[in-house]
Amino acid sequence: METILKGMKKQVVVADGKPTVILGERINPTGKKKLAAALIAGDLEVVRTEALAQVEAGADILDVNVGAAGVDEVELLPQAVKLVLETVEVPVAIDTADGKALATALAMHKEVNPGGKPVINSVNGEEASLARVLPLVAEYGTAVIGLCMDDDGIPETPEARLAVAKKIVARAGEHGIPPEDILIDCLALTVGADSKAGWITLEAIRIVREELGVNLALGASNVSFGLPDRETLNGVFLGMAIARGLNCPIVDAAKVRQYILAADLALGRDEYSMRYLKGYRQRQKLQK
Amino acid sequence: METILKGMKKQVVVADGKPTVILGERINPTGKKKLAAALIAGDLEVVRTEALAQVEAGADILDVNVGAAGVDEVELLPQAVKLVLETVEVPVAIDTADGKALATALAMHKEVNPGGKPVINSVNGEEASLARVLPLVAEYGTAVIGLCMDDDGIPETPEARLAVAKKIVARAGEHGIPPEDILIDCLALTVGADSKAGWITLEAIRIVREELGVNLALGASNVSFGLPDRETLNGVFLGMAIARGLNCPIVDAAKVRQYILAADLALGRDEYSMRYLKGYRQRQKLQK
Repeated sequence: METILKGMKKQVVVADGKPTVILGERINPTGKKKLAAALIAGDLEVVRTEALAQVEAGADILDVNVGAAGVDEVELLPQAVKLVLETVEVPVAIDTADGKALATALAMHKEVNPGGKPVINSVNGEEASLARVLPLVAEYGTAVIGLCMDDDGIPETPEARLAVAKKIVARAGEHGIPPEDILIDCLALTVGADSKAGWITLEAIRIVREELGVNLALGASNVSFGLPDRETLNGVFLGMAIARGLNCPIVDAAKVRQYILAADLALGRDEYSMRYLKGYRQRQKLQK
Repeated sequence: METILKGMKKQVVVADGKPTVILGERINPTGKKKLAAALIAGDLEVVRTEALAQVEAGADILDVNVGAAGVDEVELLPQAVKLVLETVEVPVAIDTADGKALATALAMHKEVNPGGKPVINSVNGEEASLARVLPLVAEYGTAVIGLCMDDDGIPETPEARLAVAKKIVARAGEHGIPPEDILIDCLALTVGADSKAGWITLEAIRIVREELGVNLALGASNVSFGLPDRETLNGVFLGMAIARGLNCPIVDAAKVRQYILAADLALGRDEYSMRYLKGYRQRQKLQK
């Protein structure tokens, strides 16, 4: 199954057995005081800087989220999307919980990049979310990330997360949205709070891939929240998740791309180690 | 299935779902000029140093290999085994291709640690190897590492490696050696030479575990031979292998233990992250 996204000049294909696609998470003010302050002041320069830095670090898609207390997303999100599209060539993920901001951002995306195809981040199994997001996915012909949670919260078992994934795929189908336009995110919670959390996510990934065959996104960095040496834990967890079918992790490329390239190489998806070696040289250069 | 090894004071249990057991690889002169020179001179002080350092870095079992051109293994291996047993509390792996040295080392092990149980590293599917090693495994009641190679070399497919593993388990059975005393090593070759090499090993691990249910060793460091940033690749590969059933990697604990602890944590085998956190603190202390 192929999920195709289109940026200003670059097309990205998420598919089984292909190199893992990195969705760069850094344009998001959650937990970033400086970015939040700039956005509240309407200053998007840091968004431009982050866009360039992430692509240089190997991000294939860029998340764009400007949600912070004091920000008018309906106004600012379209501007941020426009700026990112004008700054880099890669596809974007439009990330907001505000339906109106989502609509204005999608309209702006269509204006700036009429031949493009973004992904919406995200819909989930809550009735309000399905009703808010799916019609826009259908109207604009985008892809969408589907989170495995619903009105009852985040299910505790892999099977219950699969059930939410099934619901999202079925409801999307009713809107004419094909499974290849859905990236399911099985959700990673921190193992610092529940030592089974990583395993639950890994099992959910395995069974969602097996039963639905869809491509898989994952906001992976949460898994190590509150623990030391986060990159090592994130890297090993990402490798295991990729081995089970994850093919679009949502991460900080500068921090974990080397683990993702190592995972692709270890799984036989990197002929002559070319991407691994190239990634290593790029990293050396950036560190100088 | 539980593989139990006994050192002077410590017992180690290799079993599915338990914390991964680290077999420290560093007492081995292959590629280590300084250690080789010391061994040729009959100087075992560096063996003592390496034994202490590896246990401090988290090794649960220590490999003891003194094989180098110019070394009389029949003479030196028993001395090295004795020294390691007298220096640290953990079980040892007696590592030699020389049947006579294996016999003298086993006799010494029995003398120094009569209640102990070492593992022999290794037997393989070659007729000469089976004939040389299995009678000693049976006589001394040890465990043994079985390498998935035979008179035709290292098989190229996972299925053919499984076939060698089956042969070893069956032939061991004829000597009264139970499957729980066998650790199968599916062999890791460098992805630098064949980009499918990692995948072949990972698949072999999966099917050997599935079909035979035995515990699994793996000399894992080879996978990254000739490539840069070896620890990252080794760490991610180890995580994937552990997720598929590897439970006794043969590695340099000082270099990759953090990835192994991360893998156990991500798989839900480390309640309250206790081993991960303790390992982190130990590493911080050693780096000071």
